[in-house]
Amino acid sequence: MKRARNFSAGPAILPESVLEKVQSEMLSYKDSGMSVMEMSHRSSLFEEIISDAEQLLRELMNIPEGYKVLFLQGGASLQFSMIPMNLGKGGKVGYINSGSWAKKAISEAKILKVPNIEVLASSEADNFTYIPEIPETDEAYDYIHITTNNTIEGTAFQTIPRFVNAPIVADMSSNILSNRYDVNDFGLIYAGAQKNIGPAGLTIVIVKEDLIQTENTLPSMLDYRTHIKNDSLYNTPPSFSIYVAKLVFEWLKDLGGVEAMVKMNEEKAGLLYRTIEESDLFSSPVAVNSRSLTNIPFVTGDKDLDAKFVKEATALGFLNLKGHRSVGGMRASIYNAFPYEGVKELTEFMKAFEAKEGKFK
Amino acid sequence: MKRARNFSAGPAILPESVLEKVQSEMLSYKDSGMSVMEMSHRSSLFEEIISDAEQLLRELMNIPEGYKVLFLQGGASLQFSMIPMNLGKGGKVGYINSGSWAKKAISEAKILKVPNIEVLASSEADNFTYIPEIPETDEAYDYIHITTNNTIEGTAFQTIPRFVNAPIVADMSSNILSNRYDVNDFGLIYAGAQKNIGPAGLTIVIVKEDLIQTENTLPSMLDYRTHIKNDSLYNTPPSFSIYVAKLVFEWLKDLGGVEAMVKMNEEKAGLLYRTIEESDLFSSPVAVNSRSLTNIPFVTGDKDLDAKFVKEATALGFLNLKGHRSVGGMRASIYNAFPYEGVKELTEFMKAFEAKEGKFK
Repeated sequence: MKRARNFSAGPAILPESVLEKVQSEMLSYKDSGMSVMEMSHRSSLFEEIISDAEQLLRELMNIPEGYKVLFLQGGASLQFSMIPMNLGKGGKVGYINSGSWAKKAISEAKILKVPNIEVLASSEADNFTYIPEIPETDEAYDYIHITTNNTIEGTAFQTIPRFVNAPIVADMSSNILSNRYDVNDFGLIYAGAQKNIGPAGLTIVIVKEDLIQTENTLPSMLDYRTHIKNDSLYNTPPSFSIYVAKLVFEWLKDLGGVEAMVKMNEEKAGLLYRTIEESDLFSSPVAVNSRSLTNIPFVTGDKDLDAKFVKEATALGFLNLKGHRSVGGMRASIYNAFPYEGVKELTEFMKAFEAKEGKFK
Repeated sequence: MKRARNFSAGPAILPESVLEKVQSEMLSYKDSGMSVMEMSHRSSLFEEIISDAEQLLRELMNIPEGYKVLFLQGGASLQFSMIPMNLGKGGKVGYINSGSWAKKAISEAKILKVPNIEVLASSEADNFTYIPEIPETDEAYDYIHITTNNTIEGTAFQTIPRFVNAPIVADMSSNILSNRYDVNDFGLIYAGAQKNIGPAGLTIVIVKEDLIQTENTLPSMLDYRTHIKNDSLYNTPPSFSIYVAKLVFEWLKDLGGVEAMVKMNEEKAGLLYRTIEESDLFSSPVAVNSRSLTNIPFVTGDKDLDAKFVKEATALGFLNLKGHRSVGGMRASIYNAFPYEGVKELTEFMKAFEAKEGKFK
């Protein structure tokens, strides 16, 4: 069976070699007679898996001492609540409203009645088509929250803001391991696994340990200290997803790590952006200086023509190109595991579609 | 590769035919060119999976109208907090303290500062070796919480208590679909998937809809109303685990449903209990009238001999027989997918071990 050109924004394409490895170990992992799905999370076999996964992620992201790596559940959506619960210490908290998910993060902080929520910058009035300019401040904040890559809108921070008196908390769900970042620039990084890492149901949190000094009494499962103390084994973790993540990390390391990946992502995204720029039919709704490497929306400006494009593309095996229901148009999500060849085929189809339709923007 | 005799308490053994199906669909589910892990949770392919999973579970458990089925994350441990958050309405809440997990449920309710927590019965003073007698009451409680099966201690409720003015909330993690239950006897049932259902990272909640009338403003991810309203697709669900669960439900239905399963479980457990009763070496630490069908602890009364038994059993491919660290001894977890043949082999080994050791209790 031919593999699809799967442009899904998440859950998203995984490396074929990883799926083949998972397949080969499905009934017996390392001659244990058990699938990883069947293994006690307290067994030495699984402890090796989770420990290797952490070590590999530390290598790939060059995570310094003093930062803990946690394997949690609940997605970025649960982190929207856990962050204010754990890092809010009664001072001000800041948010950059750069996209639909950032907006949800803000509304969850409001539900918790966190005092002094400040939205420091927003591009909402312009449909989140760019990353807003971040004001400088030396005031103290318990944290300032950003979304490094806005999955739905297709924008990304090109540089990470620095503040003298505020740690940066970053939702990195859609470009973790796809872009160059220095973990030292962040107090906390979180990411749902289902875009660049593995199956849905696993959430990665990388947190600077000295930020975790809350005096709040929190439900155990919502308290980072619980998971730090128990090395993510307080209760049964999403063990199979952690195993797949480990295999993805190995694959990424074998290919040359994040640096090699960024280079490939720049080539893939570069080809697609060039095709859009040179087109008389397609255009990008996103400001050039805010472009994402991983999620690339494009439109014809005509809803019916967009729908026709998506339909014909789907028939040819280019799947999940329909833009998010809140934005419309098309969106190609091209995470690490998406091959260059697939982007090339898409651009060729875009040119053929444009020639056939003979319409111009 | 021969499959192990895997007695793990969870994550636990899965049906071999299910693993083979997962293996065969790993690189392309239904000729889609995608693994289920790679599929958008908004795709029609995945919507069919989650909808089939719900329908099958409804059939298997005969879930009445008026009850919602939710596919969540965070394990039973997160439910320990979500239950008082969502069902606590300021009245009294009752708990039966029948085991280590029940105790954790109580302590999480206390962390939330729920008013009027009453422990209505407890066997803690006797190391949870039996299900305590439940007092009758017609007083009003927002809910009364029980643990139908105590995984660590190997005890189970033989009948579900009924109260005039209190809905029963049940942690059914270790015997959902393994015992006969009438969903009408419960206000809410919850279970981590990793024992009888599928991979860890999925939590099933079955809740009577008219109980969800809280006026509390809760974080969206912790609010049952969010997940009810969105059919468990508020955010990305643990999609691959839901797919495996669906396959397990199909397997169970093909075998004759819960009734057939209970019969098989009674045969498996019966054989093991008989072997223990007839032994001069092994004994059960659990009261006869509180015995679990799914988790069966046994001891020699001699720690060194216990360790020797576990070591020799492991060498023969009887895995994960060591009792929970808080209890010691041995424990055989024999959920639905554990074959009768494996229990038979274990009992034969127990007899051989006893003959060889020549020690008597």
